[in-house]
Amino acid sequence: MSLADTAVAGVPPHAGPAVRRIALGVAYRGDAYHGWQSQPSGRTVQDHLESALSQFAAMPVQTVCAGRTDTGVHGLNQVVHLDTPLHREPFSWVRGTNRYLPPDIAVQWSREVPASFHARNSARGRRYCYMLLESPVRPAIERGGVGWVFRPLDGEAMRRAAACLIGEHDFSSFRSAECQALSPVKRMDRIAIERRGAYWRFEFEAVAFLHHMVRNLMGCLVAVGTGTRPADWMAEVLAARSRDAAAPTFAPDGLYFLGPNYDAELDLPRHTPAMDWLP
Amino acid sequence: MSLADTAVAGVPPHAGPAVRRIALGVAYRGDAYHGWQSQPSGRTVQDHLESALSQFAAMPVQTVCAGRTDTGVHGLNQVVHLDTPLHREPFSWVRGTNRYLPPDIAVQWSREVPASFHARNSARGRRYCYMLLESPVRPAIERGGVGWVFRPLDGEAMRRAAACLIGEHDFSSFRSAECQALSPVKRMDRIAIERRGAYWRFEFEAVAFLHHMVRNLMGCLVAVGTGTRPADWMAEVLAARSRDAAAPTFAPDGLYFLGPNYDAELDLPRHTPAMDWLP
Repeated sequence: MSLADTAVAGVPPHAGPAVRRIALGVAYRGDAYHGWQSQPSGRTVQDHLESALSQFAAMPVQTVCAGRTDTGVHGLNQVVHLDTPLHREPFSWVRGTNRYLPPDIAVQWSREVPASFHARNSARGRRYCYMLLESPVRPAIERGGVGWVFRPLDGEAMRRAAACLIGEHDFSSFRSAECQALSPVKRMDRIAIERRGAYWRFEFEAVAFLHHMVRNLMGCLVAVGTGTRPADWMAEVLAARSRDAAAPTFAPDGLYFLGPNYDAELDLPRHTPAMDWLP
Repeated sequence: MSLADTAVAGVPPHAGPAVRRIALGVAYRGDAYHGWQSQPSGRTVQDHLESALSQFAAMPVQTVCAGRTDTGVHGLNQVVHLDTPLHREPFSWVRGTNRYLPPDIAVQWSREVPASFHARNSARGRRYCYMLLESPVRPAIERGGVGWVFRPLDGEAMRRAAACLIGEHDFSSFRSAECQALSPVKRMDRIAIERRGAYWRFEFEAVAFLHHMVRNLMGCLVAVGTGTRPADWMAEVLAARSRDAAAPTFAPDGLYFLGPNYDAELDLPRHTPAMDWLP
């Protein structure tokens, strides 16, 4: 197909081809990469994704993501958008891009979206989960994909501690020094804590998260779960609005970005197969 | 503790310290190693395990395993035995050895066993499972730990095909050319095929398996599942007693050795935490 074929009727040829906005869902393991955001080193997930997209499209492609992830943090349904003059079937974007991606990154789905859609700004909420192994023995087959605690955890104590975090709060106590958010006030909509065999699954849903917020919450929840701190200590930490009040940042290994929530009318997939992989 | 402390009463000191037989359960990811069995390259799971045990014990330690695994095949409860004059608490063997093992190999448990116990010869049966992703998109976060098929699978057809394999048969059609087993006749006790979200879990239990047997069975089950072959083709393949009759060997990525079965009176763990990790 020539570029002229993609020109919209009524738009003069010198205006160039019509630009389409495409949304993609991406799954990746974070342990081999220096986080999501592009860096001069080129060793980030965004660098690999944009390089693969550019090879498939045979022209430079830039992306905007729903939520940046740190080194070691995984994505199950990271969403990006990009603008392109190309017209391709949705699954061509998936198959064509995956050909150029490393084995631990794969585009999961593709949809054409309205020009008003923005992967970050259109997100109404975001979901993360943290997978934690409770065992006297460290992880082996799931290493890199799970946090680890060798002391038994008290689920009820952790749920009581988590309850005080629900709603709108100043989460400064759980914010890293590098956080660039305009405000430390965020609304936590849901925290679910479930045990599945030797593993604990912690799920967090909020409109937006501060930098390191989930890992800092995990540090405190584990302190409560192991009995190092009582459940009502969490309310004290929250009220202190000081990073010094909270437990150390927990390891990134068990953290998964489950993805953003968008308006239902956009009809973008919220589920990817890899979500069925975790306990 | 001196070596003399370990001498058994009534045995003269010049007979040396009493030798204890220790059984260990080991979990590992196979994708970074050249299989289980020791090789001059030193890049096998056995090499790493014996090196770590020897560092912990401060003397050379050799092991015998329940079932060798190939390159890329994982172990969830591989069992080994070793003989040692050392007396250590069981969990010291676990913690002490894990200190010297790479992150994707970990001893899970340790027990002193009778001198008559033999990790391979005492096994009454062995269990494997194969994890398979059914998706138009290749794996990413679970890459290396799962096989992949992009066409939909028919579970009922695969179960009908598997039924003819139960019982004692000549499994020559599913045996690799390098197989060193004395006889191709084995007894398959159980095949279970279950779907869990986007993943299929195939579980196989037999007294013993031929080399590549599970991967060759998987190749045929997938040929039936995708409709390439009818369900009753499996009986023809079995009856042919020829490797040429079967489908190609399936990828090792999704194959997990779940471990051996021993007499219940030995009371050796059959479950490890990592078994809860798989769907």
